[in-house]
Amino acid sequence: MENIGKKLPEQVADSIINYIHAHELQIGDRLPNEYELAKELAVGRSTIREAVRSLASRNVLEVKQGAGTFISKKKGIADDPLGFGLVKDTFKLTKDLFEIRYILEPRVAALAAANATEEEIQAIDHVRIAIEEAMDTDTERQLNLDVEFHSLIAKASNNVAMHHLIPVINESMFLYSDSYTNQRVKEETILLHREIVAAIKKHDSDAAFDAMTVHMAYNRMNLNHFEQAKTKQSHL
Amino acid sequence: MENIGKKLPEQVADSIINYIHAHELQIGDRLPNEYELAKELAVGRSTIREAVRSLASRNVLEVKQGAGTFISKKKGIADDPLGFGLVKDTFKLTKDLFEIRYILEPRVAALAAANATEEEIQAIDHVRIAIEEAMDTDTERQLNLDVEFHSLIAKASNNVAMHHLIPVINESMFLYSDSYTNQRVKEETILLHREIVAAIKKHDSDAAFDAMTVHMAYNRMNLNHFEQAKTKQSHL
Repeated sequence: MENIGKKLPEQVADSIINYIHAHELQIGDRLPNEYELAKELAVGRSTIREAVRSLASRNVLEVKQGAGTFISKKKGIADDPLGFGLVKDTFKLTKDLFEIRYILEPRVAALAAANATEEEIQAIDHVRIAIEEAMDTDTERQLNLDVEFHSLIAKASNNVAMHHLIPVINESMFLYSDSYTNQRVKEETILLHREIVAAIKKHDSDAAFDAMTVHMAYNRMNLNHFEQAKTKQSHL
Repeated sequence: MENIGKKLPEQVADSIINYIHAHELQIGDRLPNEYELAKELAVGRSTIREAVRSLASRNVLEVKQGAGTFISKKKGIADDPLGFGLVKDTFKLTKDLFEIRYILEPRVAALAAANATEEEIQAIDHVRIAIEEAMDTDTERQLNLDVEFHSLIAKASNNVAMHHLIPVINESMFLYSDSYTNQRVKEETILLHREIVAAIKKHDSDAAFDAMTVHMAYNRMNLNHFEQAKTKQSHL
Protein backbone atom coordinates (compact mmCIF):
# COMPACT_ATOMS: atom_id res chain seq x y z
CA MET A 1 0.00 0.00 0.00
CA GLU A 2 2.78 2.41 -0.94
CA ASN A 3 1.58 5.86 -1.92
CA ILE A 4 4.65 6.76 -3.95
CA GLY A 5 3.78 7.37 -7.58
CA LYS A 6 0.06 6.92 -7.00
CA LYS A 7 -2.46 9.43 -8.32
CA LEU A 8 -4.81 11.20 -5.92
CA PRO A 9 -7.91 9.07 -6.63
CA GLU A 10 -5.84 5.91 -6.04
CA GLN A 11 -4.54 7.33 -2.78
CA VAL A 12 -8.11 8.17 -1.78
CA ALA A 13 -9.18 4.62 -2.71
CA ASP A 14 -6.52 3.35 -0.27
CA SER A 15 -7.84 5.79 2.36
CA ILE A 16 -11.38 4.46 1.89
CA ILE A 17 -10.06 0.90 2.44
CA ASN A 18 -8.35 2.12 5.61
CA TYR A 19 -11.64 3.73 6.65
CA ILE A 20 -13.42 0.39 6.09
CA HIS A 21 -10.83 -1.39 8.27
CA ALA A 22 -10.82 1.27 10.99
CA HIS A 23 -14.62 1.19 11.27
CA GLU A 24 -14.69 -2.59 10.86
CA LEU A 25 -17.33 -2.37 8.14
CA GLN A 26 -18.57 -5.79 7.02
CA ILE A 27 -20.06 -7.14 3.78
CA GLY A 28 -23.38 -5.38 3.13
CA ASP A 29 -22.59 -2.41 5.42
CA ARG A 30 -23.28 1.04 4.00
CA LEU A 31 -20.46 3.52 3.36
CA PRO A 32 -20.99 7.16 4.40
CA ASN A 33 -22.23 9.28 1.49
CA GLU A 34 -19.96 11.25 -0.86
CA TYR A 35 -20.37 14.47 1.12
CA GLU A 36 -19.45 12.89 4.47
CA LEU A 37 -16.48 10.98 2.97
CA ALA A 38 -15.16 14.14 1.26
CA LYS A 39 -15.25 15.89 4.64
CA GLU A 40 -13.72 12.94 6.52
CA LEU A 41 -10.85 12.47 4.04
CA ALA A 42 -10.44 16.20 3.26
CA VAL A 43 -10.66 15.88 -0.53
CA GLY A 44 -13.13 17.04 -3.17
CA ARG A 45 -16.34 15.16 -3.94
CA SER A 46 -15.28 14.47 -7.53
CA THR A 47 -12.14 12.70 -6.22
CA ILE A 48 -14.31 10.63 -3.86
CA ARG A 49 -16.59 9.78 -6.77
CA GLU A 50 -13.68 8.60 -8.90
CA ALA A 51 -12.19 6.56 -6.03
CA VAL A 52 -15.56 4.93 -5.31
CA ARG A 53 -15.99 4.09 -9.00
CA SER A 54 -12.55 2.47 -9.04
CA LEU A 55 -13.31 0.46 -5.86
CA ALA A 56 -16.63 -0.62 -7.40
CA SER A 57 -14.82 -1.84 -10.53
CA ARG A 58 -12.50 -3.78 -8.20
CA ASN A 59 -15.56 -5.38 -6.52
CA VAL A 60 -14.65 -3.83 -3.16
CA LEU A 61 -17.76 -1.64 -3.15
CA GLU A 62 -21.17 -1.99 -4.72
CA VAL A 63 -23.07 1.14 -5.77
CA LYS A 64 -26.84 0.68 -5.61
CA GLN A 65 -28.61 3.52 -7.42
CA GLY A 66 -30.69 5.56 -4.98
CA ALA A 67 -29.76 3.38 -1.99
CA GLY A 68 -26.09 4.20 -1.47
CA THR A 69 -22.70 2.52 -1.59
CA PHE A 70 -22.12 -0.77 0.20
CA ILE A 71 -19.28 -3.19 1.01
CA SER A 72 -19.50 -5.76 -1.80
CA LYS A 73 -20.02 -9.42 -1.00
CA LYS A 74 -17.39 -10.15 -3.68
CA LYS A 75 -14.66 -9.34 -1.11
CA GLY A 76 -12.67 -7.31 -3.65
CA ILE A 77 -12.16 -10.38 -5.83
CA ALA A 78 -12.25 -9.37 -9.51
CA ASP A 79 -14.42 -11.11 -12.09
CA ASP A 80 -12.23 -13.79 -13.67
CA PRO A 81 -9.42 -12.50 -11.44
CA LEU A 82 -6.69 -14.81 -12.70
CA GLY A 83 -7.39 -14.25 -16.40
CA PHE A 84 -8.46 -17.85 -17.05
CA GLY A 85 -10.99 -16.60 -19.65
CA LEU A 86 -7.97 -15.94 -21.86
CA VAL A 87 -6.79 -19.55 -21.81
CA LYS A 88 -7.72 -21.23 -25.08
CA ASP A 89 -7.56 -24.92 -24.18
CA THR A 90 -10.29 -25.13 -21.53
CA PHE A 91 -9.91 -28.88 -21.07
CA LYS A 92 -6.24 -28.54 -20.15
CA LEU A 93 -7.08 -25.55 -17.95
CA THR A 94 -9.65 -27.63 -16.07
CA LYS A 95 -7.14 -30.47 -15.57
CA ASP A 96 -4.52 -27.96 -14.39
CA LEU A 97 -6.99 -26.40 -11.95
CA PHE A 98 -7.78 -29.90 -10.70
CA GLU A 99 -4.10 -30.39 -10.00
CA ILE A 100 -4.21 -27.30 -7.76
CA ARG A 101 -7.40 -28.42 -6.00
CA TYR A 102 -5.95 -31.90 -5.53
CA ILE A 103 -2.98 -30.41 -3.68
CA LEU A 104 -4.80 -27.70 -1.71
CA GLU A 105 -8.22 -29.04 -0.76
CA PRO A 106 -7.17 -31.97 1.49
CA ARG A 107 -5.03 -29.57 3.54
CA VAL A 108 -7.94 -27.08 3.61
CA ALA A 109 -10.26 -29.82 4.92
CA ALA A 110 -7.74 -30.77 7.61
CA LEU A 111 -7.47 -27.13 8.70
CA ALA A 112 -11.27 -26.83 8.70
CA ALA A 113 -11.51 -29.88 10.99
CA ALA A 114 -9.05 -28.17 13.34
CA ASN A 115 -10.59 -24.69 13.26
CA ALA A 116 -14.28 -24.77 12.28
CA THR A 117 -16.76 -23.16 14.68
CA GLU A 118 -20.12 -24.79 15.40
CA GLU A 119 -21.79 -22.15 13.25
CA GLU A 120 -19.47 -22.87 10.31
CA ILE A 121 -20.03 -26.63 10.63
CA GLN A 122 -23.80 -26.08 10.54
CA ALA A 123 -23.50 -23.93 7.40
CA ILE A 124 -21.37 -26.58 5.66
CA ASP A 125 -23.81 -29.35 6.60
CA HIS A 126 -26.74 -27.23 5.44
CA VAL A 127 -25.21 -26.89 1.96
CA ARG A 128 -24.30 -30.61 1.90
CA ILE A 129 -27.98 -31.48 2.37
CA ALA A 130 -29.09 -28.93 -0.24
CA ILE A 131 -26.67 -30.53 -2.75
CA GLU A 132 -28.20 -33.96 -2.15
CA GLU A 133 -31.67 -32.51 -2.72
CA ALA A 134 -30.70 -30.68 -5.92
CA MET A 135 -28.76 -33.59 -7.39
CA ASP A 136 -31.63 -35.22 -9.27
CA THR A 137 -33.67 -32.13 -10.00
CA ASP A 138 -31.53 -29.09 -10.73
CA THR A 139 -27.96 -29.61 -12.01
CA GLU A 140 -27.12 -25.90 -12.21
CA ARG A 141 -28.19 -25.33 -8.60
CA GLN A 142 -26.19 -28.39 -7.59
CA LEU A 143 -23.05 -27.04 -9.24
CA ASN A 144 -23.39 -23.61 -7.61
CA LEU A 145 -23.95 -25.27 -4.25
CA ASP A 146 -20.89 -27.42 -4.80
CA VAL A 147 -18.72 -24.29 -5.19
CA GLU A 148 -20.34 -22.96 -2.00
CA PHE A 149 -19.64 -26.23 -0.14
CA HIS A 150 -15.92 -26.04 -0.86
CA SER A 151 -15.82 -22.28 -0.25
CA LEU A 152 -17.41 -22.70 3.19
CA ILE A 153 -14.84 -25.35 4.09
CA ALA A 154 -12.10 -22.92 2.97
CA LYS A 155 -13.66 -20.22 5.16
CA ALA A 156 -13.73 -22.62 8.12
CA SER A 157 -10.04 -23.43 7.57
CA ASN A 158 -9.34 -19.98 9.01
CA ASN A 159 -6.72 -19.42 6.27
CA VAL A 160 -7.80 -16.10 4.76
CA ALA A 161 -5.80 -16.68 1.56
CA MET A 162 -7.51 -20.06 0.98
CA HIS A 163 -10.87 -18.39 1.63
CA HIS A 164 -10.19 -15.92 -1.20
CA LEU A 165 -8.59 -18.45 -3.54
CA ILE A 166 -10.68 -21.65 -3.38
CA PRO A 167 -13.91 -20.10 -4.78
CA VAL A 168 -11.95 -18.61 -7.72
CA ILE A 169 -10.36 -21.97 -8.56
CA ASN A 170 -13.70 -23.77 -8.29
CA GLU A 171 -15.65 -21.23 -10.35
CA SER A 172 -13.02 -21.27 -13.09
CA MET A 173 -13.37 -24.96 -13.87
CA PHE A 174 -15.20 -25.82 -17.03
CA LEU A 175 -17.64 -28.57 -16.32
CA TYR A 176 -17.85 -31.67 -18.39
CA SER A 177 -21.44 -32.66 -17.89
CA ASP A 178 -20.80 -36.37 -18.17
CA SER A 179 -19.13 -36.28 -14.76
CA TYR A 180 -22.28 -34.85 -13.21
CA THR A 181 -24.98 -36.93 -14.79
CA ASN A 182 -23.36 -40.33 -14.22
CA GLN A 183 -25.30 -42.11 -11.45
CA ARG A 184 -22.23 -43.69 -9.82
CA VAL A 185 -20.44 -40.34 -9.65
CA LYS A 186 -23.48 -38.80 -7.97
CA GLU A 187 -23.65 -41.52 -5.34
CA GLU A 188 -19.92 -41.29 -4.70
CA THR A 189 -20.18 -37.49 -4.31
CA ILE A 190 -22.98 -37.84 -1.74
CA LEU A 191 -21.04 -40.40 0.30
CA LEU A 192 -17.75 -38.47 0.22
CA HIS A 193 -19.39 -35.15 1.12
CA ARG A 194 -20.91 -36.93 4.12
CA GLU A 195 -17.50 -38.33 5.11
CA ILE A 196 -15.90 -34.88 4.83
CA VAL A 197 -18.56 -33.19 6.95
CA ALA A 198 -18.52 -36.00 9.55
CA ALA A 199 -14.73 -35.64 9.92
CA ILE A 200 -14.96 -31.85 10.30
CA LYS A 201 -17.73 -32.30 12.90
CA LYS A 202 -15.48 -34.63 14.90
CA HIS A 203 -12.56 -32.17 14.46
CA ASP A 204 -10.61 -35.12 13.04
CA SER A 205 -8.05 -33.49 10.68
CA ASP A 206 -6.57 -36.74 9.36
CA ALA A 207 -9.99 -38.14 8.48
CA ALA A 208 -10.95 -34.86 6.78
CA PHE A 209 -7.69 -34.88 4.83
CA ASP A 210 -8.28 -38.48 3.68
CA ALA A 211 -11.94 -37.99 2.74
CA MET A 212 -11.11 -34.89 0.69
CA THR A 213 -8.20 -36.68 -0.99
CA VAL A 214 -10.52 -39.51 -2.06
CA HIS A 215 -13.09 -36.96 -3.28
CA MET A 216 -10.49 -35.12 -5.39
CA ALA A 217 -8.89 -38.32 -6.72
CA TYR A 218 -12.28 -39.75 -7.65
CA ASN A 219 -13.27 -36.59 -9.52
CA ARG A 220 -9.99 -36.39 -11.42
CA MET A 221 -10.20 -40.07 -12.32
CA ASN A 222 -13.60 -39.34 -13.88
CA LEU A 223 -12.26 -36.39 -15.82
CA ASN A 224 -9.56 -38.66 -17.23
CA HIS A 225 -12.13 -41.32 -18.16
CA PHE A 226 -14.09 -38.60 -19.94
CA GLU A 227 -10.95 -37.56 -21.85
CA GLN A 228 -10.15 -41.16 -22.85
CA ALA A 229 -13.71 -41.72 -24.07
CA LYS A 230 -13.50 -38.52 -26.10
CA THR A 231 -10.15 -39.50 -27.65
CA LYS A 232 -11.47 -42.98 -28.47
CA GLN A 233 -14.52 -41.49 -30.16
CA SER A 234 -12.41 -39.18 -32.30
CA HIS A 235 -10.45 -42.23 -33.55
CA LEU A 236 -13.57 -44.09 -34.71
CA MET B 1 -18.46 -17.74 -21.89
CA GLU B 2 -22.28 -17.81 -21.83
CA ASN B 3 -23.90 -14.94 -23.69
CA ILE B 4 -27.24 -15.22 -21.92
CA GLY B 5 -28.03 -12.10 -19.93
CA LYS B 6 -24.88 -10.31 -21.12
CA LYS B 7 -25.03 -6.78 -22.47
CA LEU B 8 -23.78 -6.03 -26.00
CA PRO B 9 -20.37 -4.56 -25.02
CA GLU B 10 -19.72 -7.64 -22.84
CA GLN B 11 -20.65 -9.92 -25.73
CA VAL B 12 -18.32 -7.92 -27.99
CA ALA B 13 -15.56 -8.22 -25.36
CA ASP B 14 -16.00 -12.02 -25.54
CA SER B 15 -15.86 -11.79 -29.35
CA ILE B 16 -12.59 -9.86 -29.16
CA ILE B 17 -11.15 -12.59 -26.90
CA ASN B 18 -12.28 -15.18 -29.47
CA TYR B 19 -10.62 -13.07 -32.17
CA ILE B 20 -7.37 -13.06 -30.13
CA HIS B 21 -7.52 -16.86 -29.84
CA ALA B 22 -8.44 -17.44 -33.49
CA HIS B 23 -5.56 -15.25 -34.70
CA GLU B 24 -3.24 -16.61 -32.01
CA LEU B 25 -2.23 -13.11 -30.94
CA GLN B 26 0.51 -13.12 -28.30
CA ILE B 27 1.57 -10.69 -25.56
CA GLY B 28 2.68 -7.41 -27.18
CA ASP B 29 0.85 -8.06 -30.47
CA ARG B 30 -1.24 -5.21 -31.86
CA LEU B 31 -5.01 -5.49 -32.16
CA PRO B 32 -6.64 -4.21 -35.40
CA ASN B 33 -7.91 -0.65 -35.02
CA GLU B 34 -11.44 0.31 -33.94
CA TYR B 35 -12.63 0.71 -37.51
CA GLU B 36 -11.36 -2.71 -38.64
CA LEU B 37 -12.72 -4.45 -35.54
CA ALA B 38 -16.14 -2.80 -35.94
CA LYS B 39 -16.26 -4.13 -39.50
CA GLU B 40 -14.97 -7.60 -38.53
CA LEU B 41 -17.44 -8.04 -35.65
CA ALA B 42 -20.30 -6.16 -37.35
CA VAL B 43 -21.01 -3.74 -34.52
CA GLY B 44 -20.69 0.03 -34.04
CA ARG B 45 -17.40 1.71 -33.21
CA SER B 46 -18.73 3.03 -29.89
CA THR B 47 -19.51 -0.55 -28.84
CA ILE B 48 -15.97 -1.60 -29.81
CA ARG B 49 -14.61 1.33 -27.81
CA GLU B 50 -16.56 0.31 -24.72
CA ALA B 51 -15.54 -3.36 -25.07
CA VAL B 52 -11.87 -2.41 -25.49
CA ARG B 53 -12.05 -0.15 -22.42
CA SER B 54 -13.53 -3.01 -20.39
CA LEU B 55 -10.82 -5.45 -21.59
CA ALA B 56 -8.16 -2.86 -20.75
CA SER B 57 -9.56 -2.51 -17.23
CA ARG B 58 -9.36 -6.33 -16.98
CA ASN B 59 -5.67 -6.16 -18.05
CA VAL B 60 -6.37 -8.20 -21.19
CA LEU B 61 -5.52 -5.28 -23.47
CA GLU B 62 -3.27 -2.28 -23.08
CA VAL B 63 -4.18 0.97 -24.85
CA LYS B 64 -1.12 3.04 -25.75
CA GLN B 65 -2.13 6.55 -26.75
CA GLY B 66 -1.25 7.19 -30.38
CA ALA B 67 0.30 3.74 -30.90
CA GLY B 68 -2.74 1.44 -30.76
CA THR B 69 -4.16 -1.36 -28.63
CA PHE B 70 -1.99 -4.32 -27.65
CA ILE B 71 -2.28 -7.67 -25.87
CA SER B 72 -1.26 -6.87 -22.29
CA LYS B 73 1.63 -8.66 -20.66
CA LYS B 74 -0.53 -8.91 -17.53
CA LYS B 75 -2.29 -11.94 -19.11
CA GLY B 76 -5.73 -10.66 -18.02
CA ILE B 77 -4.76 -10.94 -14.38
CA ALA B 78 -6.37 -8.09 -12.42
CA ASP B 79 -4.43 -5.82 -10.08
CA ASP B 80 -4.77 -7.33 -6.58
CA PRO B 81 -6.98 -9.97 -8.23
CA LEU B 82 -7.85 -11.91 -5.09
CA GLY B 83 -8.75 -8.85 -3.00
CA PHE B 84 -5.89 -9.32 -0.52
CA GLY B 85 -5.60 -5.51 -0.18
CA LEU B 86 -8.82 -5.72 1.82
CA VAL B 87 -7.37 -8.07 4.44
CA LYS B 88 -6.57 -6.11 7.58
CA ASP B 89 -4.09 -8.40 9.36
CA THR B 90 -1.23 -8.45 6.82
CA PHE B 91 1.01 -10.61 9.02
CA LYS B 92 -1.62 -13.37 9.20
CA LEU B 93 -2.27 -12.95 5.46
CA THR B 94 1.43 -13.44 4.72
CA LYS B 95 1.55 -16.57 6.89
CA ASP B 96 -1.58 -17.89 5.19
CA LEU B 97 -0.09 -17.23 1.75
CA PHE B 98 3.04 -19.05 2.88
CA GLU B 99 0.90 -22.04 3.74
CA ILE B 100 -0.35 -22.07 0.13
CA ARG B 101 3.16 -21.68 -1.31
CA TYR B 102 4.44 -24.40 1.01
CA ILE B 103 1.87 -26.80 -0.42
CA LEU B 104 2.05 -25.76 -4.08
CA GLU B 105 5.63 -24.79 -4.86
CA PRO B 106 7.35 -28.18 -4.28
CA ARG B 107 4.86 -29.79 -6.68
CA VAL B 108 5.41 -26.93 -9.16
CA ALA B 109 9.19 -27.48 -8.98
CA ALA B 110 8.73 -31.23 -9.57
CA LEU B 111 6.54 -30.51 -12.63
CA ALA B 112 9.11 -27.99 -13.88
CA ALA B 113 11.84 -30.63 -13.60
CA ALA B 114 9.68 -32.95 -15.70
CA ASN B 115 8.55 -30.42 -18.32
CA ALA B 116 11.00 -27.48 -18.60
CA THR B 117 12.44 -26.76 -22.03
CA GLU B 118 16.11 -25.82 -22.47
CA GLU B 119 15.04 -22.23 -23.09
CA GLU B 120 12.98 -22.12 -19.89
CA ILE B 121 15.85 -23.60 -17.85
CA GLN B 122 18.20 -20.92 -19.21
CA ALA B 123 15.75 -18.17 -18.28
CA ILE B 124 15.38 -19.54 -14.72
CA ASP B 125 19.15 -19.80 -14.30
CA HIS B 126 19.62 -16.29 -15.66
CA VAL B 127 17.30 -14.88 -12.96
CA ARG B 128 18.99 -17.01 -10.27
CA ILE B 129 22.34 -15.39 -11.10
CA ALA B 130 20.78 -11.90 -11.18
CA ILE B 131 19.33 -12.52 -7.68
CA GLU B 132 22.76 -13.42 -6.34
CA GLU B 133 24.20 -10.23 -7.85
CA ALA B 134 21.42 -7.99 -6.48
CA MET B 135 21.45 -9.53 -3.01
CA ASP B 136 24.01 -7.22 -1.41
CA THR B 137 23.32 -4.13 -3.45
CA ASP B 138 19.65 -3.69 -4.30
CA THR B 139 17.05 -5.34 -2.06
CA GLU B 140 14.04 -4.13 -4.05
CA ARG B 141 15.47 -5.52 -7.29
CA GLN B 142 16.25 -8.77 -5.49
CA LEU B 143 12.66 -9.10 -4.29
CA ASN B 144 11.21 -8.46 -7.75
CA LEU B 145 13.61 -10.99 -9.24
CA ASP B 146 12.59 -13.50 -6.59
CA VAL B 147 8.95 -13.24 -7.72
CA GLU B 148 10.18 -13.71 -11.29
CA PHE B 149 12.27 -16.75 -10.32
CA HIS B 150 9.26 -18.56 -8.88
CA SER B 151 6.99 -17.38 -11.73
CA LEU B 152 9.38 -18.78 -14.35
CA ILE B 153 9.45 -22.13 -12.54
CA ALA B 154 5.62 -22.08 -12.55
CA LYS B 155 5.65 -21.32 -16.28
CA ALA B 156 8.06 -24.22 -16.86
CA SER B 157 5.75 -26.55 -14.91
CA ASN B 158 3.47 -26.41 -17.97
CA ASN B 159 0.46 -26.08 -15.64
CA VAL B 160 -1.29 -23.00 -17.00
CA ALA B 161 -3.27 -22.44 -13.79
CA MET B 162 -0.08 -22.45 -11.69
CA HIS B 163 1.48 -20.03 -14.16
CA HIS B 164 -1.36 -17.57 -13.55
CA LEU B 165 -1.59 -18.17 -9.80
CA ILE B 166 1.98 -18.35 -8.45
CA PRO B 167 2.95 -14.73 -9.35
CA VAL B 168 -0.24 -13.44 -7.68
CA ILE B 169 0.49 -15.36 -4.47
CA ASN B 170 4.12 -14.20 -4.45
CA GLU B 171 3.33 -10.55 -5.17
CA SER B 172 0.69 -10.47 -2.44
CA MET B 173 3.06 -11.35 0.37
CA PHE B 174 4.02 -8.53 2.67
CA LEU B 175 7.73 -8.64 3.24
CA TYR B 176 9.24 -8.55 6.65
CA SER B 177 12.60 -7.03 5.93
CA ASP B 178 14.40 -8.88 8.70
CA SER B 179 14.11 -12.07 6.65
CA TYR B 180 15.93 -10.43 3.76
CA THR B 181 18.76 -8.61 5.48
CA ASN B 182 19.85 -11.48 7.72
CA GLN B 183 23.16 -12.82 6.35
CA ARG B 184 22.42 -16.48 7.10
CA VAL B 185 19.06 -16.26 5.32
CA LYS B 186 20.75 -14.76 2.26
CA GLU B 187 23.35 -17.53 2.08
CA GLU B 188 20.68 -20.19 2.54
CA THR B 189 18.59 -18.63 -0.25
CA ILE B 190 21.55 -18.66 -2.65
CA LEU B 191 22.34 -22.32 -1.91
CA LEU B 192 18.73 -23.49 -2.18
CA HIS B 193 18.06 -21.60 -5.41
CA ARG B 194 21.15 -23.34 -6.83
CA GLU B 195 19.85 -26.74 -5.67
CA ILE B 196 16.45 -26.07 -7.23
CA VAL B 197 17.89 -25.03 -10.60
CA ALA B 198 20.36 -27.94 -10.61
CA ALA B 199 17.51 -30.41 -10.04
CA ILE B 200 15.39 -28.87 -12.81
CA LYS B 201 18.40 -28.99 -15.16
CA LYS B 202 18.82 -32.70 -14.45
CA HIS B 203 15.05 -33.20 -14.90
CA ASP B 204 15.07 -34.78 -11.45
CA SER B 205 11.55 -34.19 -10.09
CA ASP B 206 12.15 -35.68 -6.66
CA ALA B 207 15.25 -33.56 -6.08
CA ALA B 208 13.41 -30.44 -7.25
CA PHE B 209 10.50 -31.26 -4.91
CA ASP B 210 12.86 -31.71 -1.97
CA ALA B 211 14.95 -28.58 -2.63
CA MET B 212 11.82 -26.44 -2.95
CA THR B 213 10.36 -27.98 0.23
CA VAL B 214 13.52 -27.06 2.16
CA HIS B 215 13.42 -23.53 0.66
CA MET B 216 9.79 -23.03 1.71
CA ALA B 217 10.27 -24.57 5.15
CA TYR B 218 13.35 -22.45 5.79
CA ASN B 219 11.55 -19.25 4.81
CA ARG B 220 8.52 -20.02 6.94
CA MET B 221 10.74 -20.90 9.90
CA ASN B 222 12.29 -17.44 9.58
CA LEU B 223 8.91 -15.76 9.44
CA ASN B 224 7.99 -17.56 12.66
CA HIS B 225 11.24 -16.46 14.31
CA PHE B 226 10.44 -12.91 13.27
CA GLU B 227 6.97 -13.22 14.85
CA GLN B 228 8.38 -14.65 18.10
CA ALA B 229 10.96 -11.87 18.34
CA LYS B 230 8.20 -9.30 17.78
CA THR B 231 5.98 -10.86 20.47
CA LYS B 232 8.89 -11.01 22.91
CA GLN B 233 9.69 -7.36 22.30
CA SER B 234 6.10 -6.30 22.93
CA HIS B 235 6.26 -8.06 26.32
CA LEU B 236 9.35 -6.15 27.49
